[in-house]
Amino acid sequence: MTEFIAAGTKFIDLPSSFPFKRGESLRNGRIAYETWGRLSAGGDNAILILTGLSPNAHAAATPDNPEAGWWEAMLGAGQPIDSDRWFVICVNSLGSCKGSTGPASINPETGQPYRLDFPDLSVEDIANAAHEVVVALGIRQLACVIGNSMGGMSALAYLFLHPGSARGHINVSGSARALPFSIAIRSLQREAIRLDPAWNHGKYDDDHYPENGMRMARKLGVVTYRSAMEWDGRFGRVRLDSEVREDDPFGLEFEVERYLEGHARRFVHQFDPNCYLYLSRSMDWFDLAEYADGDVMAGLARIRVEKSLSIGVHTDILFPLQQQQEVADGLRLGGCDAEFVNLESPQGHDAFLVDIEHFGPAIAGFLARL
Amino acid sequence: MTEFIAAGTKFIDLPSSFPFKRGESLRNGRIAYETWGRLSAGGDNAILILTGLSPNAHAAATPDNPEAGWWEAMLGAGQPIDSDRWFVICVNSLGSCKGSTGPASINPETGQPYRLDFPDLSVEDIANAAHEVVVALGIRQLACVIGNSMGGMSALAYLFLHPGSARGHINVSGSARALPFSIAIRSLQREAIRLDPAWNHGKYDDDHYPENGMRMARKLGVVTYRSAMEWDGRFGRVRLDSEVREDDPFGLEFEVERYLEGHARRFVHQFDPNCYLYLSRSMDWFDLAEYADGDVMAGLARIRVEKSLSIGVHTDILFPLQQQQEVADGLRLGGCDAEFVNLESPQGHDAFLVDIEHFGPAIAGFLARL
Repeated sequence: MTEFIAAGTKFIDLPSSFPFKRGESLRNGRIAYETWGRLSAGGDNAILILTGLSPNAHAAATPDNPEAGWWEAMLGAGQPIDSDRWFVICVNSLGSCKGSTGPASINPETGQPYRLDFPDLSVEDIANAAHEVVVALGIRQLACVIGNSMGGMSALAYLFLHPGSARGHINVSGSARALPFSIAIRSLQREAIRLDPAWNHGKYDDDHYPENGMRMARKLGVVTYRSAMEWDGRFGRVRLDSEVREDDPFGLEFEVERYLEGHARRFVHQFDPNCYLYLSRSMDWFDLAEYADGDVMAGLARIRVEKSLSIGVHTDILFPLQQQQEVADGLRLGGCDAEFVNLESPQGHDAFLVDIEHFGPAIAGFLARL
Repeated sequence: MTEFIAAGTKFIDLPSSFPFKRGESLRNGRIAYETWGRLSAGGDNAILILTGLSPNAHAAATPDNPEAGWWEAMLGAGQPIDSDRWFVICVNSLGSCKGSTGPASINPETGQPYRLDFPDLSVEDIANAAHEVVVALGIRQLACVIGNSMGGMSALAYLFLHPGSARGHINVSGSARALPFSIAIRSLQREAIRLDPAWNHGKYDDDHYPENGMRMARKLGVVTYRSAMEWDGRFGRVRLDSEVREDDPFGLEFEVERYLEGHARRFVHQFDPNCYLYLSRSMDWFDLAEYADGDVMAGLARIRVEKSLSIGVHTDILFPLQQQQEVADGLRLGGCDAEFVNLESPQGHDAFLVDIEHFGPAIAGFLARL
């Protein structure tokens, strides 16, 4: 079991017994985070970023870790999320393996990794753990909670469970609940991992590691993170130069297959399989309608936030555009000044990571009006 | 290795040496087919149906096999493809395992199944084999070639390779070439099968069968055959009644997962894994642009057919609508009276199998004008 902790990561301890939504409690957990900029004297310039499934807290370079972060072009001095104005916190999700406590962490009761003994993790637990970081940093009210993808779910849970905790909210390619197509995709990803004999009901190690299962899961993820339209232009039917077909008649042949293989190989040993299962399942479970007799709009309408921006792209098949529209409509029902922006990015669900040209001005513009 | 041959299936023998596009030849192959209606005295009322990856030749009930076929509501007396008017032939694809020779068939040279010694199969070979059936039945020119999904590719190959062989063409959710999103999906399906240790480089048997790989491949297929929109209405977030979670914390929980599991279980032992690999790969290889210096429109424009109908649905992510538009536009460049119809079916790629309400009139109307 490996945790992957970037240089310069900071930590806060969770309460010694941290209750999970589904009933169990976590003992002596911690949350990893990083910050950019300075908290103002009035404490009113703080922004919290909640991430998708796999990122760590290193959203952008810091003095302690100059390596580029996963949202490098979005965050920093003079960037759309301007660290000259804002004090920005990015949290590694509870249940992850990038510094925050998760299934790959040592269980203090046994001295062994939790593996599948980690408590059942919900998006709400991720939100509550992030809230502990904000409180520990002495912030009484955030200026804005930004959540991308899974983080869009976590952000809505955060706002729902902690009324008045933020004035603004940016929901980037997120949703208020998981729908069946996305559940199906994630279910297949988890099944690929679980079917790998090396997964061994969570009891793998570095020598017997569910590499094939993780590779399949990641490839399927990448297929759903991008869009057919982008790939038509990017890969077309370009074939690989090398024809290594003799002993492997069904091996890689097209450039798009190599792209997937490369993505998968980079990921497989950079993310813990059990953590992947827990975080993936937490998304399937998430449904704000649970809090409002099955009515997702009513669930959203109970959230109290002054201004919000919900952004999506029409090429997103995993968190489709109507889900960001739903977030905006629901928040508006609750009295929020809620904007919905449909960006024309061809890159699908991952557009927010790569199409800074469109996402940057949308986010900067909202923050400027906050 | 099992072949799955429906009652009442008829056969024609291929020439004793049948050359494949990629260079090898098949010895003593055969093609399975079924027919409906009667060939007219002038021989001008014949329709050929070319199928998607998995169907057999039993498109509809016959006197010899009253069991409902896979296109039962579309084909028969008084149906949109009216067997009172048309003599209809449906062919099981070369390379399949439903009667036509494929990787699961016995290689006469060894007395053992071909497995991976089957020649590299192209869509063009499927088309040429179907043409042998038409010739054997004494038909000089078809009234229409209808192809669904993979069959849409086979039909274009048929028309391209046999100029003047048909007056009309209906392309249902097909395409003139494989694009990278679909290649990626099929590549993952094949990888799931190949990664199953029981696949054993094609040397499985009924006792050591790549069940997990086939299940994953089929589930991924079903995900891409339907649409998120349909599933939202059909499954929503409905959970299974039984909570069998104790010993299987990542097991099935949502109705959509049970739906996939049911589909997969029914398929796994009804289709040969090696045949699946061969047919799947043949689709990735297909590209009419190969015949026209890389220009797919020019490839289509070389096809000689009088009238065509290209139908698709906007919810199809595997053979997206613009590919049916492309077929129509390309055929029109070649002088064809080419129609393109965009149906509003929510069911995605599989809509032609289930949304007979919309596909039926479109197909019947075209045939009435033929």
